[in-house]
Amino acid sequence: MRPGAQSLLPLLKPRSIAVIGASDDPTRIGGRPVRYCKEHFDGALYPVNPNRKEIQGLKAYASARDLPEAADCAILAVPAAITFEAVQDCVARGIKGLCVFSSGFAEMGAEGTALQDKIRDAALNGGARLLGPNCLGLFNATRGNFMTFSASIEHGRPKTGNVAIASQSGAYGSHLFVLARQRGIGLSSWITTGNEADVDLADAIAFFAEDPETQVIAAYAEGLRERDRLFAALEAARRARKPIVMIKVGRSEAGADAARAHTAALAGSDAVIDAALKEFGVHRALTADEMFDVAYAASRRLYPVKGRLGIMTISGGAGVLMADAAVEYGLELPAMPEATQAKIKALVPFAGPRNPVDITGQMFNMLDTVSEFMDMMLTEGGYDGIAGFFTSWPSAPSMSDKLLAALKRASDKHPETPIALVILAPPGPWQKYEAAGFLCFEDPTRAVAAIAALVKFGRAFARPRRAPAPALAKNALPAPTAATDEREAKRILKSAGIPATEDILAKTAAQAVEAAERLGYPVVMKIVSPDIAHKSEIGGVALDLRDQQAVAAAFAELRGRVLSKAPKARLDGMIVSPMVRGGVETILGVNRDPVFGPVVVFGLGGIFVEIMKDSVLKLAPFGREEALEMIRSIKGFPLLDGARGRLKMDIGALADALSKLSVYAAANAGKIESIDINPFIVLPKGGFAVDALIVPRKADSSS
Amino acid sequence: MRPGAQSLLPLLKPRSIAVIGASDDPTRIGGRPVRYCKEHFDGALYPVNPNRKEIQGLKAYASARDLPEAADCAILAVPAAITFEAVQDCVARGIKGLCVFSSGFAEMGAEGTALQDKIRDAALNGGARLLGPNCLGLFNATRGNFMTFSASIEHGRPKTGNVAIASQSGAYGSHLFVLARQRGIGLSSWITTGNEADVDLADAIAFFAEDPETQVIAAYAEGLRERDRLFAALEAARRARKPIVMIKVGRSEAGADAARAHTAALAGSDAVIDAALKEFGVHRALTADEMFDVAYAASRRLYPVKGRLGIMTISGGAGVLMADAAVEYGLELPAMPEATQAKIKALVPFAGPRNPVDITGQMFNMLDTVSEFMDMMLTEGGYDGIAGFFTSWPSAPSMSDKLLAALKRASDKHPETPIALVILAPPGPWQKYEAAGFLCFEDPTRAVAAIAALVKFGRAFARPRRAPAPALAKNALPAPTAATDEREAKRILKSAGIPATEDILAKTAAQAVEAAERLGYPVVMKIVSPDIAHKSEIGGVALDLRDQQAVAAAFAELRGRVLSKAPKARLDGMIVSPMVRGGVETILGVNRDPVFGPVVVFGLGGIFVEIMKDSVLKLAPFGREEALEMIRSIKGFPLLDGARGRLKMDIGALADALSKLSVYAAANAGKIESIDINPFIVLPKGGFAVDALIVPRKADSSS
Repeated sequence: MRPGAQSLLPLLKPRSIAVIGASDDPTRIGGRPVRYCKEHFDGALYPVNPNRKEIQGLKAYASARDLPEAADCAILAVPAAITFEAVQDCVARGIKGLCVFSSGFAEMGAEGTALQDKIRDAALNGGARLLGPNCLGLFNATRGNFMTFSASIEHGRPKTGNVAIASQSGAYGSHLFVLARQRGIGLSSWITTGNEADVDLADAIAFFAEDPETQVIAAYAEGLRERDRLFAALEAARRARKPIVMIKVGRSEAGADAARAHTAALAGSDAVIDAALKEFGVHRALTADEMFDVAYAASRRLYPVKGRLGIMTISGGAGVLMADAAVEYGLELPAMPEATQAKIKALVPFAGPRNPVDITGQMFNMLDTVSEFMDMMLTEGGYDGIAGFFTSWPSAPSMSDKLLAALKRASDKHPETPIALVILAPPGPWQKYEAAGFLCFEDPTRAVAAIAALVKFGRAFARPRRAPAPALAKNALPAPTAATDEREAKRILKSAGIPATEDILAKTAAQAVEAAERLGYPVVMKIVSPDIAHKSEIGGVALDLRDQQAVAAAFAELRGRVLSKAPKARLDGMIVSPMVRGGVETILGVNRDPVFGPVVVFGLGGIFVEIMKDSVLKLAPFGREEALEMIRSIKGFPLLDGARGRLKMDIGALADALSKLSVYAAANAGKIESIDINPFIVLPKGGFAVDALIVPRKADSSS
Repeated sequence: MRPGAQSLLPLLKPRSIAVIGASDDPTRIGGRPVRYCKEHFDGALYPVNPNRKEIQGLKAYASARDLPEAADCAILAVPAAITFEAVQDCVARGIKGLCVFSSGFAEMGAEGTALQDKIRDAALNGGARLLGPNCLGLFNATRGNFMTFSASIEHGRPKTGNVAIASQSGAYGSHLFVLARQRGIGLSSWITTGNEADVDLADAIAFFAEDPETQVIAAYAEGLRERDRLFAALEAARRARKPIVMIKVGRSEAGADAARAHTAALAGSDAVIDAALKEFGVHRALTADEMFDVAYAASRRLYPVKGRLGIMTISGGAGVLMADAAVEYGLELPAMPEATQAKIKALVPFAGPRNPVDITGQMFNMLDTVSEFMDMMLTEGGYDGIAGFFTSWPSAPSMSDKLLAALKRASDKHPETPIALVILAPPGPWQKYEAAGFLCFEDPTRAVAAIAALVKFGRAFARPRRAPAPALAKNALPAPTAATDEREAKRILKSAGIPATEDILAKTAAQAVEAAERLGYPVVMKIVSPDIAHKSEIGGVALDLRDQQAVAAAFAELRGRVLSKAPKARLDGMIVSPMVRGGVETILGVNRDPVFGPVVVFGLGGIFVEIMKDSVLKLAPFGREEALEMIRSIKGFPLLDGARGRLKMDIGALADALSKLSVYAAANAGKIESIDINPFIVLPKGGFAVDALIVPRKADSSS
C-alpha cells in the first residue's frame, strides 16, 4: 500500500531540515540550500558534514545519526556513490522525507538504475518518502524551506499565494518559477521531481489537491505513468475544485522522438494523454504564458459553469477583437436585454448598447455612467464573466483611481462574476486594480481566453462523478489467446453484448444455399482460411447474393479464386451472413496504450477515418452517455443524424455497442492488443458488427 | 489618378507643422500636440488660434492663411462645424498634409458623412492629403513630430527603430504603441487612420513599403477596402522584402456583427481576406504578443527560405517542448550529420547529439565546448535557424558575459542564420545579448514560432511575381443576364474552355433514343423545366441508361413524375448526356465578395464540402500552378491522388478547369453573382462539368 499524500508533509512543510553534504561555500550545491534556508526558513537547520564543526555559522554534525532530533526531512547533496549510506543514516535517525539532489542514477544507465532502486527501497522500507534523485528540490513559500540549489531563488523570493508548481524537469521548473515571480503570481509551493524514484508528479498533484494553501496546480510533465494513481490525483483535485494547468511535452512525433532520446520512460500516445487530461478538466497549456494566464485567473477561485461573456469597451475595434476571441474560445456573446439597451441609448446616444457594450473614448469624463453601465451588464445582462477594455485610462494619474472606484462600485455587488480588464498601467495602479478583485491583462485575447478557461474549469467541477461503467456481461467469453478469425471475434463480441451479424459456416455449395435459405436473402459470402488475413484483397467476398443460384455460383467462384490466387492456403469453407443494407458504416476499435491501457476509437468507415482523420478516442471503460458524447463529437456526425434528407441512424444502439466494447476491453486489459470492428453498420434501428478481428497481447510484451 | 505614396511625406516627415485650434492648456486636444512637438520636434511649429497672441510660449497666428510659410502639414483640432473652413484656409496657404483630430463626421451618420466628403474634396482639390477625421494622429520617431493627442506619449517616447505601426483604430493603435514601447520594439513611425476619408491603411502600407526608415510593418485593421490599391501596397511591401504583420479583427461571425455595429463599412468575408493576406505573405497575428514577437524577430531582416530548425538546449524537457513547437509551426528538425554526432559524443559523452542537441545543465562549466557545438550546428548542421534554451544562465553575473562570448564566437561566423535564445535575464544582460544579434525570448514556443514566421516571410519574398493568369478564351460567351439552365451554363463554361458533358435536348422519347445512340451508352436523362430548379428533388434524373428500351422507358417515367409532382411546371423536354463513370466528384464554384470580387471555391463533392467543410478558396483570377496548389491543399486530396489502391485522377485537367473558371469569373466580375459546377467529375484522363448553374449579379446590388 502506497503511503498517502500526507506523507509528503515532512518534505514540503518541515519544521526541521538536515542538509547531508552541507558546504560552507554558499555557492556550492551543498551550500546553497543552507544559505537559502538560513535566510528564509523558520525551523531548525542541521548541516551534516563529517569534516567540519561549523557550516555557514551553524553547528555541523558528522552524520545524520548524530542529529539532536529526528529532523522532518533531509537534503542529500552527496555524490551518488555514498548516497545509499546517507539514506540509511537518515532513515536510522527517523527522518521521513529525503530530497536527493545527487545525479548519477537512472539517467546514467543500468548501473545507476540499480543504485537508484536501492536508495528508494531503503527509504520506503524505513518509512520515508524520497524526492529525486537528480532533482532540483522544492520549497514551500510559507515555511520558507528553500531546499534547492537553483540559483533562481537568489534574484528574489516568490510572492506567497495559492498556486503550486510541480515540474518533472528541474531546469524548466526553475524557468517557470522565475516567470511566475516576474509576473507576480503568488506561489504556495514549488517542487521538481527529477528521476522520480519514489515521489512523482501524481504524488505532488495528490498532495496539492489536499493542501489548504494551494488552490491552483501548475504542472509540467514530460512523461506520465501509472494511470490509476495519476487519475486518482487528477480526480482528487477536480473534486476539491482546484484547477490543474499542465504543460505536457511530446505532443508531436518529433517531440516524442526527442523525449525518447531524453528519458527512457515508456511514453503513452499523446492523443490518449490529451483525452485523459480532458476527462478530468485539466487545462493543457502550450506556453508558459498560457499556463500563467490561466493560473492567475484561476487564483481568484471563480468558476462559472456557463459561458456567456459580456464585453465592455472604449474602442469599437477592441470590442470586435474580443468578440472574435470569445467565439474562438467557445464563449457565447448574448446581446443585452432590449430594455437595457434602450436605457443605455437613452443615457448615452452614441454608445453601442448591444454586446460588446461600446462606451467609446468619449465617456472618459462620464465615469458615473460607466459604473452604471457595468452594473447593468452584471445585473441585467446575465453574463457569467465580463471582459472590459480600458487600455491606458488607468495609467493617467487623474483617471486611475476614479475609474477603479467607478468599476468597483458595480463589481462589489457581484463578487461571483469574474471580471477581466484589459489595461495598461504602471505597477502601482495595476496592483490596485488587482487588489480590487479585477483580473488584469494587457492583451484582449488573453483576457478572454482566461475567462474561457475558468468556464471550462467550472464545467469540469460541476460534472458529477462519472457513473461507473456498466458491468461486463455475465457470460462474456474470455479474450482469445491467438488472433481470431471473423467468426470467433464476432462470437466473443456477441458474448459481451455487442450485436454482430449471424454467420453460418458452409463447407459445400449446398450447405451455403441451406444457410442462405435460413438467414433470408440477400446474403454475403466470405472465404474462411487461417492463411488469408485480408480476404477482400484476393476477391474473397461476394455481396448481395439474392437467390439460390447466386449463392451456389458465388461458392464456386470464391473457391476458384482461392485455388488460383492462394493455391497453398487452407480453405475451411465459406461464411454465409445476412447482407446488412441501408445503414452507415462505422469503425469501432480498441488499442492498448502502454501507459493508459485500452483506448476505444470511433469513427465513420473508410475514408473518414483513413483520409479525413475524423475519429475520436476515449479511455476504456465508459458508459452509454459518454459513448454518445464521443459519437456526437466527430465532424461526420451529421451523416448519422439524418443530414440532408438521410435517415437518422440508431445512435443509442451504436453508443451501447461502444460502451460494451470499452467494458470488455477494460475487463481484458492485460490480454488484448487490439480489437477492430470494421465495419460496424448502424441502422435506423439497431446495428451490427459485420466484420471483426481481435488480436491478443503478445506474450512477450514488456508492460 | 490617386497621388503616390510620397504624397504622405508632408504628414509623416514634415519640416514645419501648423496646429489649427492650438490650445495654451497642454492637457487639451489642441494643446497636447503643441506640447509634444515643442519637446520632440526639430522643425518649425506654428500654433493657430485667433484668440491668442501666444500659445505655450510660441507665437500664435490668427489663421493658417497668416502663416509665415506654407507649413508642410497642419493638425486640425477644431470642432467639426468649422473644420471645412480650416481646411480651406490650410489649402489656400499651400499646406499639403492635413491631420484632422476632430470627430463628428461619418461616425455620426449621413450629415456627418456629407461634411466629411466636403473636407476631403477640399483637401484633395487643393493638392493636400487628409488623415482622419476622427483619428488620433501620427508620429515619426526620427523627426519627433508627435502629432497626436494620445496621452500614451507622456509616459515615454518609443525607441527609434525600423518597425512602423499603422492602425485603423486610434484606441487600439495607442494600445499597440504602449505595448511596443514596454517591450523595447524600435519604431520608425506610427499612424492611425480614423475615418479614412482620404488616407487609409493601404496608403500607409504603400508609404512604409517605400520608406527607407521602415523595414517591418505592423498593421491593425478593422475593415479592408479597395482591393486593387490594397493588393498593390501589399505587393510593394513584399517586393521590398518588408514583412507585414497584421491583426485583422472580425474573424468570427460574432466579431463581424460587432464590426458592423461599430463601422458601417461593407465587410468582405473573413475567409477571403485570410486567403488574400496569405497570397502576399502577410503574417496574420491573433494577439499583440504575436504581432510584436514576429515584428521583433523580423526587425533583424534575416529571412531564410528553408525551414530546418536546429535546437540547442540545456534541458531535455525544453528541447522536447521546442521540437513540439517546431512541428506545430511547420519547421523541420533534421538530425545533425552522423559524423558530427560522433564528434559531439566523443567530446561530451553525456550530451544528446542529434537534434535537439542536449548539452545538459552539466556543461555550465564547459563554455568553450558550448561554443564549439553551436559552431558545429551552424556549419555542419545545415540549419536555417537555431533556437537555444539557456534559461537563467545569463542572469548569473559570473556566467552572463562568458556564455554570450561563447555563443557569439560561433554566431559571428554565420551572420545569415537567425538565432533565437530562450533566456531569463535582467534588462542589462538581456540587451547585451540582443546587441550581439541574438533574438531573445522568455518562452521557448514563442521563440520557435518567431523563427517559423521568418521562414514564411523568406518564402513569400523569394516567390517570383505570379505569372499573369491566362487570358480569357477568345470566344468566351458573355455572362448571362438571367439565371441559366444547365445547358446554357455548360455552353458558357465550354466557351471559356471548361470541358462539360455534351447535352442533347429531346422533346420526345424517339428523339431521346436518337440522342443516346449518337452519344453512346450509357447515358443519363434529366428533365428541363424553367419552373423546376432542383430536378433531383422530384426524381427528375435517370442514371445509367444502357439501351434504347431503358432510354424510352426513362423518358416516359420522368415525364410522368413531372405531371404528378409538379403538374403546373412547363416541361421543355429532357436532356440526354453521356454518363460519366469512374471518376471523382468535385465542386467548383465562384462567389462574389463585396470587397474582393470573385472568389473561386474548390472541394470534393457531396459531404466533403457540406459536412466535412473540406474546401479551399482563392481570389480570381489565377493560373494553373496556383490551381494545383489549391487542389493539393484539401484534406481529401489523396482521394484524387490514388490513395489506397484508387486510380489517380487527372489533376492537371482539374487545375485547368479551375484556372479557366477563375479567369472567366474575373473577366465578368461585375456581372456574376455565383457559378456552381456541381459536380465536376475528374477522370483518370480529363474531366467534365456534369451539372452547372450561373447566377448573374442582381441589377440592384449596391457594390
